[in-house]
Amino acid sequence: MDHTWLVRETEFRRPALRAQEAVFTIGNGYVSTRGTFEEGLIGDLSATLIHGIFDNAPLVVTELANAPDWLPLAPRIGDEPVQLDVGALLHYERVLYLQNGVLARTFRWRSGTGQTVDIRYERFMSLADKNVLVVRCQITPVDFSGPITLHATLDGNVDNAGLPHWNKVEQGHTDQQTIFLQSATRATGIMLCEAARLQVEGTPEVDYAVYQRENVPTITARFRGEQGQTITAEKVVTLFTSYDAGRNTRTAALAKLAEVTGQGPAYDRLLRASAQAWATYWADSDVEIVGDDEAQVATRYMLFQLLIAAPRDDEYVSIGAKTLSGFGYRGHVFWDTEIFILPFFTFTQPQIARNLLLYRYHTLGGAHRKAQEGGYKGAQYPWESALTGEEVTPRWVPAPAGHPDGQQQVRVWTGDIEIHISSDIAYAVWHYWRGTGDDAVMIQYGAEMILDTAVFWGCRAEWDTRAEHYEFTDVIGPDEYHEHVDNNFFTNYLARWHLQRALDLTEWLRQHAPAKADELTERLGLTPAVCDHWRHIIDRLYIGRAPDGKVFEQFEGYFRRRDVNLATLEPRHCSVQALLGLKATNETQVLKQPDVLMLLSLLPEEFDEATIQANWDYYTPRTDLTYGSSLAPGIQAILATRIGDLDMAYHLYMQAALVDLKDLRLNTEHGIHGATAGAMWQAVVFGFGGLRLTDQGITASPRLPAHWQRLRFKLFERGQPREFVFENPPPS
Amino acid sequence: MDHTWLVRETEFRRPALRAQEAVFTIGNGYVSTRGTFEEGLIGDLSATLIHGIFDNAPLVVTELANAPDWLPLAPRIGDEPVQLDVGALLHYERVLYLQNGVLARTFRWRSGTGQTVDIRYERFMSLADKNVLVVRCQITPVDFSGPITLHATLDGNVDNAGLPHWNKVEQGHTDQQTIFLQSATRATGIMLCEAARLQVEGTPEVDYAVYQRENVPTITARFRGEQGQTITAEKVVTLFTSYDAGRNTRTAALAKLAEVTGQGPAYDRLLRASAQAWATYWADSDVEIVGDDEAQVATRYMLFQLLIAAPRDDEYVSIGAKTLSGFGYRGHVFWDTEIFILPFFTFTQPQIARNLLLYRYHTLGGAHRKAQEGGYKGAQYPWESALTGEEVTPRWVPAPAGHPDGQQQVRVWTGDIEIHISSDIAYAVWHYWRGTGDDAVMIQYGAEMILDTAVFWGCRAEWDTRAEHYEFTDVIGPDEYHEHVDNNFFTNYLARWHLQRALDLTEWLRQHAPAKADELTERLGLTPAVCDHWRHIIDRLYIGRAPDGKVFEQFEGYFRRRDVNLATLEPRHCSVQALLGLKATNETQVLKQPDVLMLLSLLPEEFDEATIQANWDYYTPRTDLTYGSSLAPGIQAILATRIGDLDMAYHLYMQAALVDLKDLRLNTEHGIHGATAGAMWQAVVFGFGGLRLTDQGITASPRLPAHWQRLRFKLFERGQPREFVFENPPPS
Repeated sequence: MDHTWLVRETEFRRPALRAQEAVFTIGNGYVSTRGTFEEGLIGDLSATLIHGIFDNAPLVVTELANAPDWLPLAPRIGDEPVQLDVGALLHYERVLYLQNGVLARTFRWRSGTGQTVDIRYERFMSLADKNVLVVRCQITPVDFSGPITLHATLDGNVDNAGLPHWNKVEQGHTDQQTIFLQSATRATGIMLCEAARLQVEGTPEVDYAVYQRENVPTITARFRGEQGQTITAEKVVTLFTSYDAGRNTRTAALAKLAEVTGQGPAYDRLLRASAQAWATYWADSDVEIVGDDEAQVATRYMLFQLLIAAPRDDEYVSIGAKTLSGFGYRGHVFWDTEIFILPFFTFTQPQIARNLLLYRYHTLGGAHRKAQEGGYKGAQYPWESALTGEEVTPRWVPAPAGHPDGQQQVRVWTGDIEIHISSDIAYAVWHYWRGTGDDAVMIQYGAEMILDTAVFWGCRAEWDTRAEHYEFTDVIGPDEYHEHVDNNFFTNYLARWHLQRALDLTEWLRQHAPAKADELTERLGLTPAVCDHWRHIIDRLYIGRAPDGKVFEQFEGYFRRRDVNLATLEPRHCSVQALLGLKATNETQVLKQPDVLMLLSLLPEEFDEATIQANWDYYTPRTDLTYGSSLAPGIQAILATRIGDLDMAYHLYMQAALVDLKDLRLNTEHGIHGATAGAMWQAVVFGFGGLRLTDQGITASPRLPAHWQRLRFKLFERGQPREFVFENPPPS
Repeated sequence: MDHTWLVRETEFRRPALRAQEAVFTIGNGYVSTRGTFEEGLIGDLSATLIHGIFDNAPLVVTELANAPDWLPLAPRIGDEPVQLDVGALLHYERVLYLQNGVLARTFRWRSGTGQTVDIRYERFMSLADKNVLVVRCQITPVDFSGPITLHATLDGNVDNAGLPHWNKVEQGHTDQQTIFLQSATRATGIMLCEAARLQVEGTPEVDYAVYQRENVPTITARFRGEQGQTITAEKVVTLFTSYDAGRNTRTAALAKLAEVTGQGPAYDRLLRASAQAWATYWADSDVEIVGDDEAQVATRYMLFQLLIAAPRDDEYVSIGAKTLSGFGYRGHVFWDTEIFILPFFTFTQPQIARNLLLYRYHTLGGAHRKAQEGGYKGAQYPWESALTGEEVTPRWVPAPAGHPDGQQQVRVWTGDIEIHISSDIAYAVWHYWRGTGDDAVMIQYGAEMILDTAVFWGCRAEWDTRAEHYEFTDVIGPDEYHEHVDNNFFTNYLARWHLQRALDLTEWLRQHAPAKADELTERLGLTPAVCDHWRHIIDRLYIGRAPDGKVFEQFEGYFRRRDVNLATLEPRHCSVQALLGLKATNETQVLKQPDVLMLLSLLPEEFDEATIQANWDYYTPRTDLTYGSSLAPGIQAILATRIGDLDMAYHLYMQAALVDLKDLRLNTEHGIHGATAGAMWQAVVFGFGGLRLTDQGITASPRLPAHWQRLRFKLFERGQPREFVFENPPPS
């Protein structure tokens, strides 16, 4: 097996337990499960998260509800439960097979009474049949023969950090090898049914029994293990929610289970189908890096995490900031998806990108309401979005422990004033359109998203009569170290760009889809006066610059804030904000992420090299690159290649690619950094590959790190597949 | 047409508008729509309510979300919209056809410019295909020929008393006669799609066009009306929620629409199928009363309302206190369903009764949680239940206008301490079992409900060491005029009965379903000690009586409360509580409903005639029969027949039967009194029919009102249909 497709862990380290659980998350774009152990472990944080399965929660409004645990498959050797931190662990290895999505764990364990077993677990979530989840356990007695028991359960007693979301609806069994558990979320009433079948092979006699513990139906299999002989147990689970099957989740789960287990041992058959599906995705989405195995594995790993997080056939859900791999950000969807993650899908899996955009189309209702509540027309997307596009940003969150501001609760303002999200989504639509040439999506969905949000911008713009310009005051830009600022460069520049695209689009629609143009003009109230107003804003919107004219000011007054030499704060293991406090950080020029650089990277065609260099030089030293935003490194890597600093670019690239594998930000336990993964892909393609989307098509100007021999990836350019292969000259 | 199957309104009376909208509610057990006008009217209160479609709401926790309005079909004569209170209304008649569920309205209307039209609307919701709703409009120009336009819309801008619950997801059309509107509830994310097709017949040329107003897709049909010629327009609507079709509500709605409209004019065909389904329900559920047309129509009308409110193929929803006919009680489910409504279905449509009981089975999870939060084991059902069995009783409600207590908000204690609901449900299960002999349901579902709630009672019972008895303190009985009372007779007696049945049941299970007995013993913790404790409670539970030993005391200390002669408060048009205030009423003996009499009627075999008479004599004069609980009259009618007061029985019966047709309690606008309808059926069957469920089978001792010639109804007795015909001797 090619080791550049494997993520391998060779030691069981308790301190890294929860971060590694996130790292070893597997999934299929519909559901994911963290890399907890099948036999359980005290102190683990198991989670199975399903797109769109939200339930109300105090403070955070709504969160993805940790689903009943389908995974448990626990052996007892004689009377002793196998537990890695009890008895003796003589060998341990865990491997994630990126190519086919299988997570395997092999270990040799000796019980307190001295019986030694070799155990191999494998599991996967079928990419060919999203409702099918499989786990297999192979047990080989090394130095004994004797009774072994397996417990296969569906566990409804699950929670999100202490908050249970599910009520039991029904538990039962259809025979002694088949159980089911039906549940419903408490406030949102989403129904779910899991069904499981246990099948043991490799021993002449197995005694199966079902034990109905309250909310935890369990199948037990008792058999005799013979020294040196491997016994294989398969637990096949089917999972349906009411979004799949309406009220008939139980019928659907049991029928599917019967279908997939009806022809004898199912593991190999189901894995073949899933692996085939994986092959088709990798064929289009892989990035090959020759000459740097660490970068190669890390890159494939991050792309794997994106591929398992992306909904395949559902246009009503999107990818949360921590994918489906942890409880961070509660499964809420941010700009992370559109700005950071989407390009990977736009260019390698456009059908998935289309679904992700349609999620935003279908949540325009929530965006209308948000605009309306602020007193504006049009559509204003929520900063955090969940089930139906309502604003679900918490207003208060508990302050982190040891927080220097000393408050119990911190007021979160992003839901109120981080308004650039509406342009980010318009940008994503436009970028998708340019990349795919998908006029149909633009006409049927995209145009409305861009125009409806443009209507919001037109209302939101404030006219300063003294200065005679438009402005946006009291906002938060992407750099969240600075709250309540006026004329954030990123916000203003992108809003202006957005209004210009809206005007372009009305022209284009009139030519290419006049009926749609009429409908939208009428429905959204796009009168000539509205369009004139947009033009006026475009002409007169405030954009701040330093006196040299080259460095843009991140927001009005930024240059007057206190300058801090970040080197003086080293060494540190937390963000500058955590170190200095919210208020003090707000008064400095230190950035969580550099808004100006971010904007320059989004619109590369609008800025020359000298501008990029000047802004790079100003903002990079002021950015908290290590513990600030995980969004920044990948994007800055693109700019670093543009100004020719390949060492810096590579350093930033690896910061992005390894963020979770090495837990660089000490928060991987809360979930995979999805946006970082997306930014990493952009860094390799737009940075090292130097790809540019131009009106004449895609151009490339590769600048590979010196030690890379070859970089290879594929893209769809307006529907046509193109392969890019870049090579460094062999070292002379 | 037999007039005893018609509810007829011959006058358009604005003051009665909203009450009559509730009265003319139609439905099919899945969805209902109030009797608002198809062409709209300022001041109307339109509502389409679907079982299980709940969304969060402030204060009241959750409520049935008024669905996007499928009904509007509005003509314009020339440029003038037809509106009943504009122009001249020359003739008006509205008829509800109870036999086939069609609501028809015929009127002659003259516009401001003097053009006269005859218009007939008909609508129904298919009982043969629950997702299909149909409205037809027939227009005949009386004295002119000229242009007529019809607007057929799906209106997403709906709300519950000002609170909108739906976000638009997508609107569109597939041709110029077919529109759709897809929506999602804001917090619970339930999806819904309505699709509509408009077809006009009877004129050679129709100009169709779709107009996409935001959230209100509209089809317009323009044509020329010719004097004396009738034009018929059909609007067929399909409606699917995500509980029906998962994420595919749009596909499902459009496919079903194409299916039912694909063969030309659909109205007659769809109506035939629906009418056939109605015929099968009436065949088993009708009650025939000969000699009293008012009673006959009112009785059929109430049964019609029960039949349209009852879910047919869904075991995860139940009937709210106001059915699906208004916003009262927000669609929440109370004991109304199990105690008042269920017997009608148990005996005439057992499959529906089974579904209603299973709703309680599937919400045991919520009941566990309620018990747990109170510190008890087992299952405690919520006083108000909605989507998943969570307690959803509001804690505070706005005080009614002019409320004598002068508060802004009233604390509602029922969710905290009205605990008899758990026994009510156990009673309903037992009663269903006795009536149907459905052992399978008892074994698989019912036993767990009875035993799990018995576990709660075992924990809840308090031992009074001084008095050496068990008691239940600080409760509310069914009579909600008295809060925070100790040892409510109804609560105590029924809890004791419940514990006894639980013990009986464990014995029965051990004989008839030993595996289930083992499972439940284990799962619910039914140790011998628990059963002994139940026996102890049964032996020593406090039941209060007057010194004569005959009259039970409604609660401890009731007899010492102030006695009020209700006659001194007449005439009044509101409840005693509204008149005197909460606090003052609480201090009197005045009852909203008589708990003791209620209990006597539930367990007729446990009390002799003398006991009934004594309690009747004491409690009836103290009960606010006119504006107290609408639950009381029907039940008391049963007792009145038992003590031989047929005049009183008939008076009470008609109070129940006419409660909504005559708006007797001045609150019909908020919805039909479902429990009153159920109680009415019990009054006719158990009261006038004198039916008793005994261990030897059903016995009858009819006592008909003197002017009734014949009473006829059918029952299923343990699965076997039986017809009962009772006749008064002809007057000599």
